[in-house]
Amino acid sequence: MTAPGATGRAPRSQVAAANDPDCDFPIRNLPYGVFSTEGAAPRCGVAIGDMILDLAACEARGLLAAGGSFAAPQMNGFIARGRAEWDRIRATLTELLAHDGPRNLPLVAMANARLHLPIRVTEFTDFYASKHHAFNVGVLFRGPENALPPQWTHMPIGYNGRASSVVMSGTDIRRPMGQVRGEAGPEWTACRRLDLELELGAIVGADSAMGERIGVDRAEDMIFGYVLLNDWSTRDIQAWEYQPLGPFQSKALGTTISPWIVTQAALEPFRSAGAVRDHDLLPYLREDRPGFYDLTLGWTMNGQRMAQTNYNVMYWSSAQQLAHHAVSGCPMRVGDLLGTGTISGPAPDQTGALLEMTQGGRVPVMVNGQPRTFLEDGDEVGLFGFAQGDGYRIGFGPCTGRILPARP
Amino acid sequence: MTAPGATGRAPRSQVAAANDPDCDFPIRNLPYGVFSTEGAAPRCGVAIGDMILDLAACEARGLLAAGGSFAAPQMNGFIARGRAEWDRIRATLTELLAHDGPRNLPLVAMANARLHLPIRVTEFTDFYASKHHAFNVGVLFRGPENALPPQWTHMPIGYNGRASSVVMSGTDIRRPMGQVRGEAGPEWTACRRLDLELELGAIVGADSAMGERIGVDRAEDMIFGYVLLNDWSTRDIQAWEYQPLGPFQSKALGTTISPWIVTQAALEPFRSAGAVRDHDLLPYLREDRPGFYDLTLGWTMNGQRMAQTNYNVMYWSSAQQLAHHAVSGCPMRVGDLLGTGTISGPAPDQTGALLEMTQGGRVPVMVNGQPRTFLEDGDEVGLFGFAQGDGYRIGFGPCTGRILPARP
Repeated sequence: MTAPGATGRAPRSQVAAANDPDCDFPIRNLPYGVFSTEGAAPRCGVAIGDMILDLAACEARGLLAAGGSFAAPQMNGFIARGRAEWDRIRATLTELLAHDGPRNLPLVAMANARLHLPIRVTEFTDFYASKHHAFNVGVLFRGPENALPPQWTHMPIGYNGRASSVVMSGTDIRRPMGQVRGEAGPEWTACRRLDLELELGAIVGADSAMGERIGVDRAEDMIFGYVLLNDWSTRDIQAWEYQPLGPFQSKALGTTISPWIVTQAALEPFRSAGAVRDHDLLPYLREDRPGFYDLTLGWTMNGQRMAQTNYNVMYWSSAQQLAHHAVSGCPMRVGDLLGTGTISGPAPDQTGALLEMTQGGRVPVMVNGQPRTFLEDGDEVGLFGFAQGDGYRIGFGPCTGRILPARP
Repeated sequence: MTAPGATGRAPRSQVAAANDPDCDFPIRNLPYGVFSTEGAAPRCGVAIGDMILDLAACEARGLLAAGGSFAAPQMNGFIARGRAEWDRIRATLTELLAHDGPRNLPLVAMANARLHLPIRVTEFTDFYASKHHAFNVGVLFRGPENALPPQWTHMPIGYNGRASSVVMSGTDIRRPMGQVRGEAGPEWTACRRLDLELELGAIVGADSAMGERIGVDRAEDMIFGYVLLNDWSTRDIQAWEYQPLGPFQSKALGTTISPWIVTQAALEPFRSAGAVRDHDLLPYLREDRPGFYDLTLGWTMNGQRMAQTNYNVMYWSSAQQLAHHAVSGCPMRVGDLLGTGTISGPAPDQTGALLEMTQGGRVPVMVNGQPRTFLEDGDEVGLFGFAQGDGYRIGFGPCTGRILPARP
């Protein structure tokens, strides 16, 4: 199904691979990232087909002007220049990369580049915004009566995560040791219930002042773009530690994000309503227009497709999450990363975590012919995501991680 | 009572005020901070008596060498130089500021300086390490049967806080608006149960790698020093929001720290055991030597002394908290700030929060002749802390904040 507003003949790029209808990076996408090449330092670029346009080199050649911000090894400096600059540079890049744009652009083959974290993550917050996920997990942790906390439909519940543990797609994840509930007190063990969480991450693109609240409209204007996000989780460590102050070391083993920031501008044609609400919201959380995107999201294990769902199953948008994040006067900063929380639809093959898919490890799923409950050493998980237009798609590229054995 | 090891005639400084036995900043203290003067940018300094030694100017004059790190507007650069450098510079400063040290040092009167946050807070984590506090608050939130969570005596429970909301002593704190539990669903209101939390904050002085665990001994070596920390809290917002993912906006209105980092070296003579443990700990949390300090801590409201306790009532040391923080492989960074959690003794006049002191607002306390449960607009809270030596004390200086009315 094609999203309303996403129709119309796709413009063509001078980079041939970008015109393939299945390519993640057509000229309508133009996601930003950070890359390096042999002998040259990390700098900012934009993905186009199978190539990267070197934005630092573009500025050095006078093809665009961004105050030197693209020469940095993260996107934070450019992002901080503000929405008007985001729009102006997007228009310039669309002209440069068009079918009839100037030749001899500083394009680097993706195959020859190494990708780095696209931002310096200022702070990381993770939410809990899929009602299906919250209910399913709540049943497993607290039983069906207390599954959904009473405030869940009134506010986007979230917690502060650990920015230092956010890593690039492709980084190996070490199975942690930790405390789990034993027969009489704690047991020291390698994690036995290691899981993934399929999420989007919104990247905050503007600061707010301490003591200042943010309306949902302004919050949306403050979001620069999105990445895929896998919030690796240890369910056994989590169950023992999380009361009353929330998850801590159970979520600190690593959080993987995809290398390319897909901008809000690229997703705009796919705007969509989210899940139906049970009741009106308090004014600071109301939004004037649909706050989600028609965005297919899913994950694979060892190459097998495990689940597929859509961002528009969610209850709380990233803009609502950001508005709530600042409601007590908490200052927000460029480079803050807001995870949506696990994205799950109602059916088992729409779930964004093994905990849900296997009903807490009770119902194994088959992976390449073997029964499986949680992640085993050597497993590789990949997230995928794209918005399907008419003859093109806005893709996120890969978001992968492989499990290494614990260090006892 | 004088701590063992803290005796011996105190050396004298060429700064007269530093030799007053009640001065927070004698030559045995030498806490670091960041200050600015009229027309000159923020830079690092050390407090001595009623003066600040300008460390950037010292280096410019060849009195010490620290790779230019003291010219920065935070201490992070110097701290990252490592423990051997911390010791070397402390020895140099002790010589420079001694009674017979060189004259014409670049000393600035504290009265003419403005103080700034001493570190760029990389990430902020808050723990929950006083058993008295955890039990008292647990009774109020969950009743006496479930007051202390089962894992409490087995691990230092903590949660990630928000680094962007950490502010300098003297910064006004805005009463937040937020959601609280109403008759039928949430109510939108200015916070009605605004509270302080008396804490210490440990400043991490070395990085650790992702996937790496840290023993308690090494963790202690990684701590640069301590500040006073007031983790302002909104108990009504907290009660509605905190299940199941922990406190979030209820703790994001602001966290105030004192301007001077008291180093581990200055506190070393006051080393002390903490509270008695109920049972053995898992090996990764065991410590070879007493992990606390004999440190008097308390707080005032509008000038009235409200409570006084001691750091050695605590159950988990900052070194144990840091070791636990990295147990899942979470990378730690220079400038991470670890709050101890509220420090409370068993008696009401030893409690570090109004929630406990007033038994959840049921038993008012008298403040300057008026009954009081929680903080009112215009209230000023001050924390104090010092280790008492023989004829000198190692003090922290002020940690204050005043409540501004909510913006409806």
